[in-house]
Amino acid sequence: MLIVMDKKATPQEIEAVVTAIESKGYTARSIPGGERVSIGVLNNEGPVDASLFMGLPGVKDAIPVTRPYKLVSREVHPEDTIVDVGGISIGNGHLTIIAGPCAIESEAQALTIAKHVRHAGAQLFRGGAFKPRTSPYSFQGLGEEGLKILAQVRETTGMPVVTEVMDFETFDLVEEYADIIQIGTRNMQNFSLLRRAGRSHKPILLKRGMAATIEEWLMAAEYILEGGNAQVILCERGVRTFVHHSRNTLDLSAVPVVLKESHLPIIVDPSHAAGRRDQVIPLSRASIAVAAHGLMVEVHHDPGNALSDGAQSLYPQQFEELCDQIKKIFNILGNNVDRCEAPISIAE
Amino acid sequence: MLIVMDKKATPQEIEAVVTAIESKGYTARSIPGGERVSIGVLNNEGPVDASLFMGLPGVKDAIPVTRPYKLVSREVHPEDTIVDVGGISIGNGHLTIIAGPCAIESEAQALTIAKHVRHAGAQLFRGGAFKPRTSPYSFQGLGEEGLKILAQVRETTGMPVVTEVMDFETFDLVEEYADIIQIGTRNMQNFSLLRRAGRSHKPILLKRGMAATIEEWLMAAEYILEGGNAQVILCERGVRTFVHHSRNTLDLSAVPVVLKESHLPIIVDPSHAAGRRDQVIPLSRASIAVAAHGLMVEVHHDPGNALSDGAQSLYPQQFEELCDQIKKIFNILGNNVDRCEAPISIAE
Amino acid sequence: MLIVMDKKATPQEIEAVVTAIESKGYTARSIPGGERVSIGVLNNEGPVDASLFMGLPGVKDAIPVTRPYKLVSREVHPEDTIVDVGGISIGNGHLTIIAGPCAIESEAQALTIAKHVRHAGAQLFRGGAFKPRTSPYSFQGLGEEGLKILAQVRETTGMPVVTEVMDFETFDLVEEYADIIQIGTRNMQNFSLLRRAGRSHKPILLKRGMAATIEEWLMAAEYILEGGNAQVILCERGVRTFVHHSRNTLDLSAVPVVLKESHLPIIVDPSHAAGRRDQVIPLSRASIAVAAHGLMVEVHHDPGNALSDGAQSLYPQQFEELCDQIKKIFNILGNNVDRCEAPISIAE
Amino acid sequence: MLIVMDKKATPQEIEAVVTAIESKGYTARSIPGGERVSIGVLNNEGPVDASLFMGLPGVKDAIPVTRPYKLVSREVHPEDTIVDVGGISIGNGHLTIIAGPCAIESEAQALTIAKHVRHAGAQLFRGGAFKPRTSPYSFQGLGEEGLKILAQVRETTGMPVVTEVMDFETFDLVEEYADIIQIGTRNMQNFSLLRRAGRSHKPILLKRGMAATIEEWLMAAEYILEGGNAQVILCERGVRTFVHHSRNTLDLSAVPVVLKESHLPIIVDPSHAAGRRDQVIPLSRASIAVAAHGLMVEVHHDPGNALSDGAQSLYPQQFEELCDQIKKIFNILGNNVDRCEAPISIAE
Repeated sequence: MLIVMDKKATPQEIEAVVTAIESKGYTARSIPGGERVSIGVLNNEGPVDASLFMGLPGVKDAIPVTRPYKLVSREVHPEDTIVDVGGISIGNGHLTIIAGPCAIESEAQALTIAKHVRHAGAQLFRGGAFKPRTSPYSFQGLGEEGLKILAQVRETTGMPVVTEVMDFETFDLVEEYADIIQIGTRNMQNFSLLRRAGRSHKPILLKRGMAATIEEWLMAAEYILEGGNAQVILCERGVRTFVHHSRNTLDLSAVPVVLKESHLPIIVDPSHAAGRRDQVIPLSRASIAVAAHGLMVEVHHDPGNALSDGAQSLYPQQFEELCDQIKKIFNILGNNVDRCEAPISIAE
Repeated sequence: MLIVMDKKATPQEIEAVVTAIESKGYTARSIPGGERVSIGVLNNEGPVDASLFMGLPGVKDAIPVTRPYKLVSREVHPEDTIVDVGGISIGNGHLTIIAGPCAIESEAQALTIAKHVRHAGAQLFRGGAFKPRTSPYSFQGLGEEGLKILAQVRETTGMPVVTEVMDFETFDLVEEYADIIQIGTRNMQNFSLLRRAGRSHKPILLKRGMAATIEEWLMAAEYILEGGNAQVILCERGVRTFVHHSRNTLDLSAVPVVLKESHLPIIVDPSHAAGRRDQVIPLSRASIAVAAHGLMVEVHHDPGNALSDGAQSLYPQQFEELCDQIKKIFNILGNNVDRCEAPISIAE
Repeated sequence: MLIVMDKKATPQEIEAVVTAIESKGYTARSIPGGERVSIGVLNNEGPVDASLFMGLPGVKDAIPVTRPYKLVSREVHPEDTIVDVGGISIGNGHLTIIAGPCAIESEAQALTIAKHVRHAGAQLFRGGAFKPRTSPYSFQGLGEEGLKILAQVRETTGMPVVTEVMDFETFDLVEEYADIIQIGTRNMQNFSLLRRAGRSHKPILLKRGMAATIEEWLMAAEYILEGGNAQVILCERGVRTFVHHSRNTLDLSAVPVVLKESHLPIIVDPSHAAGRRDQVIPLSRASIAVAAHGLMVEVHHDPGNALSDGAQSLYPQQFEELCDQIKKIFNILGNNVDRCEAPISIAE
Repeated sequence: MLIVMDKKATPQEIEAVVTAIESKGYTARSIPGGERVSIGVLNNEGPVDASLFMGLPGVKDAIPVTRPYKLVSREVHPEDTIVDVGGISIGNGHLTIIAGPCAIESEAQALTIAKHVRHAGAQLFRGGAFKPRTSPYSFQGLGEEGLKILAQVRETTGMPVVTEVMDFETFDLVEEYADIIQIGTRNMQNFSLLRRAGRSHKPILLKRGMAATIEEWLMAAEYILEGGNAQVILCERGVRTFVHHSRNTLDLSAVPVVLKESHLPIIVDPSHAAGRRDQVIPLSRASIAVAAHGLMVEVHHDPGNALSDGAQSLYPQQFEELCDQIKKIFNILGNNVDRCEAPISIAE
């Protein structure tokens, strides 16, 4: 249930509603945004009786929420969330390009690639310091040394950095260095990690699990918002199917569904979906055309010698082409994506 | 194996090569296109000995074919196939839009929709006369009466018509009326139907099976080319996965793979992939952005009363928006899609 | 709707009900089995008004059918169907073993294998004369010559024979020779073929499509029953998933679901599910343990030289082991499988 | 690479081989079991030069390992691992039945169910204290209070207890109470958790990820063995596919593949695969017939009021039937499962 307050409701009236909610054993959560205050009622079992709140001073409406997710839903929060990272806006109306190597290998490697991708048009730099690897015998990332190199890249290039956190134990460390903290596909339902992310003051990039439904994905985001962190960016990266001409099957229909269901920004990772360099540019164009808010792309200046995922990393020149192409597509979509049946009206 | 002839090879020399191939028990098939003649060697078991042909007069080269498909492959036929239907070109450099209702319901219905979609920018009209239906108790289409209505639409609007053939028995009938004969997803490996299509003089639109790999799909097309009909258009329409927010999962990575592997045109059917109206326009934009050669879209002037698939049919006004949007995307891609690593170089 | 007649209803009363049904534009179909007559009402759109029939003489009850499939459902036909093939009973209480090579290659090959599998315990012989093949260049079967060899096997060994029909055109021919006509996974929704099978007087073995839901599968069977042929045997053969350690993923949960939903016999084909010889025996044991009514297994005396599917064919000695093992499991399950929550009560 | 020592190799000779391995920058790991010592060479990049070790005193052989997993493979460790838990043996030749409620709800609930399942034949008790839940608003388990109830159940009934650990942070706590520590499907690639499990002295029950290949699953187990804990039990619990008549699709072909590839015990969880009570008994029979070493089954004395997963929990009486049925099937399989092509030879 969502309690919508009058525009002129006083802090005392709002406080009284919160008290009334909590006296029933529910959790009350204020919803940011808009010109009026709304209060979500969480942790109820079974339906909530609207009449408990409708009579209270300053209450305009009490709206039942039909979805299992509450705080991430458009029902509760109709306006698009725009995540701000060091002055860069991520969300509706903005085209966000995150690029960099799969793994940080050295300062020289990171800086070389960062300069390439910044020049081509990337606003944020990505690179793994802690790498989740199928095999215990594979390169596991440089760890804290990698984080320090990321900080060096930020200082040198001015680009905010995105890097993955693998576990609760190293969360504090990653949080100290990263501008955006990535939670990877294998951890989408690592609930301890999600709860910790909910207590973070940094934006979270939440990748879809490789076999997750959209409902499960939004519920994972709900864990983070429920914990108090509303700065969540969703990232579609392909799902596992019988298809084997690409590593995963990029599910672009997820983008319009998420845009309709949730106010959170959604970007696409075509590199992990494809697993092959020659599909990355076409899938990037398609991702922007379907109205995702941005891309996260793997780029390496020397893919043949990359310590991980070289086969799917673009050469710098290919990444330049990619940026040129998607900017043109983004521009014709116009600045705003509506959430109506026909999501885009192209302004001539 | 592909026998490439000299540009100046005489008909007698070509004939001698065909005879040499057939004397070994293989099948010889001339490959159309280009300024020189090539001859495919088919139905071999195990490798073919190139030296059998290299010495013959007029033979320039003998190239082993590494793919299980031969005639549909770029190895054998590097140039893009352009299918011509009543003066409309389908293939590289052209944007093809096919639209219409799922099923032909009446002359009035068909003509109403046809005029709408022609006005919006569709070049071809689609509509089912014979409908494959999961249930024997569902509306099965108007049959021959539907075909006659399609002919009426063509006469009135000038649009060539696309309609599905369900079986060998009614192939002659459908062939008589249709400009493009569609083979549906459930029939992709109906080999009798594919062989009959191979003997047709009409272009064939071959939908991907809902659980088909690209190799299986191209092999199905190979049946048609092997039978003598080189006018095949491929159509991606989504595959069946665990995902249920769309009826099928549109596999757009199939497009760059097919463009690389085969010379045949490929279009996308976003309506059957989505199964829901509100995903059709975003997926259409993505399909053109990924570099498909066109779309086939379901449109109905009164979807609420459609006899089949109403929920996924666009309203005419939505279809107008769709056409506007995809034309803009098509235009910025430039006229030609290369088949290199980065498939498109956008001309400024 | 199902109209249940009194036990003592006269032929005239039954006829009157049929007339009443047809006068409303519906189709009436008598349901075989039991000690009383029931009449299914088919081809209705929307609900049927029970009061139209409840007052008629001899009518005991009028039961709405909640499933999309009617004639194949337990609602309409609660008793198990037992298919009789030359004195061999297939269905509840019987263990049916069908075995033989993927393709008939020669009379010597067929007879050699037939004698092996009969000796081991198979009651029916399988072998393909018309083979659906992904590639037009693969061995397509011996055609009518293969059918004649099958007839020879039947005459020599006394085993009824099962063989696949690929299309409407060759149905008459296959029907002439086969004791059970198989419709393969790629043809599960070849509706012309299903309608033709519905007019056949031979039992039909209907394989599940590789991406078919159970509802779609039962609807395919419904086409056959609706056409007038109630002798249908279902065959689970694995579905296509992301898993690649077996060719398909055998979906054994389909067996209890089908047993609950339908009265038709269901067997399992572990060979095509596995695609690898070393999984066939374990999956065969599991299939009988889950309460399938039988198996169809590929056996070849010389798998290394088989013209198709050699890798999944058992050696004769392995097939003997298989038969020994599954008979023991079948025996402890007891003779009858209940369709209650706990489907089997093992008699001590 | 696996260094196999002579039977008479001295501790000094073994130590010298370890030193030689580590001097090359590799990791040496002794392999338990058999009458001779073997030493695995881990963390090599690229092939290892056998001649470095073949000449050393006491070395009998140096065998390259072809699989990406080493310590879990049959190549490195041919004998079956038998896990001992409080005198109960889990692995080849033993039938292990683990049963209990999805979640511990109260001492009364736990003890009631424990007595039922012990009486029916279960040797171990399962119950969740920390529950991974899709929604942050669902019941999350009793936490430490649940663990204390489990200890109470063990004391009262003598049954060892199995419970899930959800994260690194609570691992110490769970380890203190549990006899077997379960890692759930969502955590199969939570590498921090796997590394922590590798340092545990308690056996680990590792469930297959819902979209994991067998190679990924065995690699996850490799993390645990590489950490030093060789007591790992694998648990198949179904994979996510397009199929929706069961919650997941139980992949029983995984059992023979795992039995061939690895020496670790493998059991099956039919409850989470099915998600519906009426499929659990048939799938349990199939699991034992396919030669799994045991089952983990959800049982509740009052499923209608269970706090989680009631719909898939068996009633106690159904569980009795299940135990009766699977014991009979286990007995006819004989005591030993071979790992040859035809895995079981039934002793008459």
